[in-house]
Amino acid sequence: MAAKLLSRYPWASHPFIVGAPMRVMSGASLAVAVSQAGGLGFIGPGVKTQHMEADLNEASTLINEARGSSAFSAIPLAHPVLPVGVGFQLWGDDIEIAIATVEKFKPCAAWLYAPRESLAEFDVWSRRIRKVSPQTQIWIQIGTLGESKRLLQSLEKPDVVVVQGLESGGHGRATDGMGIMSLFPEVADAMANSNVPLLAAGGIADGRGVATALCLGASGAVMGTRFLAANEARISQGYQNEIVRASDGAVNTTRTLLYNHLRGTFGWPAEYSPRTIINKSFLEHQEGSSFEELRKLHDEASKMGDSGWGPEGRLATYAGASVGLIHEVTEAETIVRDVQRDALSRIQSIGVAN
Amino acid sequence: MAAKLLSRYPWASHPFIVGAPMRVMSGASLAVAVSQAGGLGFIGPGVKTQHMEADLNEASTLINEARGSSAFSAIPLAHPVLPVGVGFQLWGDDIEIAIATVEKFKPCAAWLYAPRESLAEFDVWSRRIRKVSPQTQIWIQIGTLGESKRLLQSLEKPDVVVVQGLESGGHGRATDGMGIMSLFPEVADAMANSNVPLLAAGGIADGRGVATALCLGASGAVMGTRFLAANEARISQGYQNEIVRASDGAVNTTRTLLYNHLRGTFGWPAEYSPRTIINKSFLEHQEGSSFEELRKLHDEASKMGDSGWGPEGRLATYAGASVGLIHEVTEAETIVRDVQRDALSRIQSIGVAN
Repeated sequence: MAAKLLSRYPWASHPFIVGAPMRVMSGASLAVAVSQAGGLGFIGPGVKTQHMEADLNEASTLINEARGSSAFSAIPLAHPVLPVGVGFQLWGDDIEIAIATVEKFKPCAAWLYAPRESLAEFDVWSRRIRKVSPQTQIWIQIGTLGESKRLLQSLEKPDVVVVQGLESGGHGRATDGMGIMSLFPEVADAMANSNVPLLAAGGIADGRGVATALCLGASGAVMGTRFLAANEARISQGYQNEIVRASDGAVNTTRTLLYNHLRGTFGWPAEYSPRTIINKSFLEHQEGSSFEELRKLHDEASKMGDSGWGPEGRLATYAGASVGLIHEVTEAETIVRDVQRDALSRIQSIGVAN
Repeated sequence: MAAKLLSRYPWASHPFIVGAPMRVMSGASLAVAVSQAGGLGFIGPGVKTQHMEADLNEASTLINEARGSSAFSAIPLAHPVLPVGVGFQLWGDDIEIAIATVEKFKPCAAWLYAPRESLAEFDVWSRRIRKVSPQTQIWIQIGTLGESKRLLQSLEKPDVVVVQGLESGGHGRATDGMGIMSLFPEVADAMANSNVPLLAAGGIADGRGVATALCLGASGAVMGTRFLAANEARISQGYQNEIVRASDGAVNTTRTLLYNHLRGTFGWPAEYSPRTIINKSFLEHQEGSSFEELRKLHDEASKMGDSGWGPEGRLATYAGASVGLIHEVTEAETIVRDVQRDALSRIQSIGVAN
């Protein structure tokens, strides 16, 4: 299954490493760098759906510059496809603009998640994307066994399903989430006859996590937070400093909608929340400070530059529970290659006791 | 490290499978069967500490009967050791009785967890156990990065550390727990220089989980719930039926102290709670039923035989989040061998994309 999946992305290599579509933070530079290193990078949703066009324009330019001298030369000229994916939040993105953007750029994959009300929205988006760009593979992110079972009934079968555990930084299941160790194999069993490759997401930040994903039955592994520590990430310095600094995700991160609300983002379906590194906004929220007070202090912090983040800061610092495994900022290419190499060497070493 | 650990338990084989010390439920038959199959079985704490003596007497008899014709023949006669371990809950077990029992039976390992107030209690227990039975290895169960760091400062270095993720059924960290995918590698990094082998626990129920544990850096894997579906488990039929029936641990299990309290068990340190399959006691507790009413109904259900368990039942049904991976009751030996074989075959198959 992993080989079959890789064959659809001919520039990619085993083990298959995917850069998650992180809102705003995974722009063209990061997505292209991940793909160029032998993974698959996704451009995240923008603040508005129309912002994705600028990212895709930039990605196209970067890819054209790199085509001759990189893994992208493996893309058959007869079936051109943009070797980056795009992510859409179904509840918030404008479907008309999204479809027009996909039609124009033909990204190799569209990652759909967080429908407003029901999984039937995946069918609508999938059908329209396939109509305008048959070469765009449909990826659907789920976080529960129930979703996997309902997906099996869907009219538009996805090409890939991403199974996200509660360790994730990105928005995931708030009330019915579970660690990837328990969630993934149960979903894999439920979908065993579907022939849909599954990827694991949430809490994967190094070669150990990637090897683990493969052991659980995944055809590849998705990393988000690890790529926030890439030079190419579109992230403030203060935020990136926190990704490198923070440890002990069990204690120092939490799932909460507070920071969404402080930033003025409302409307996520009730089942979803992101994980964030805890700072003063959350601590004072727990101590009973009013939302209005917290928002005032948050807005002041947002004008303070990099000191707005950190233990004494107040700004949103979304990160997965494995943030403590990330210790330096480096090129995305280095991340992909190190993680692939470490995963393979770990798998080779554990076959016998040593 | 895994080979070095295995050499201490010469009847055991790679990958190292451990049967968790489940209170009452893992008695002599189960523990001996797990060890005899090439793993290491632990006898769980009894209702009272003195109950362990009967279990160890029974285990000794079973082991003597099996010695010549089993893996136990690998135990050197010059250094006899009982090839099963014992588990103690530090907050509740009587240390004097425990030490006398260890001295009498010389189990190969003592698994210590849940100190009443501080990790210093591990030092006291370790020192006294080592004094009366130097061949008894000290295993300590933790569930947080902080505990791993404090263990590094302890006077009595443990022989093995068990890292338990929040997927576990057994009592674990209630408020600062985390999925094993994130928790284990961070603890492993913190303890990398200690030379103490680490085992992974929580949510491991099949070969995938065991392979995963090894990928994360564990020297072996602990399973609890999977062995509740062993013929040798000391468990009511109605409870065991639930282990086979239940699925979707994210939705159908929860961490709660309610069932402890309904059974009259009070006193667990505040940081600990077990995971249980949800039934009417929990649902009605959430709906606001009084504890007195719930206890009355619970006590009535406890006289109903096997129908006291199940979705319409009311009795405690402790189980890990991977309960949905367990589909049949079988011999413990079959479980150990199947899981070992599946883990190795998975590891061998994922080295290349296929």
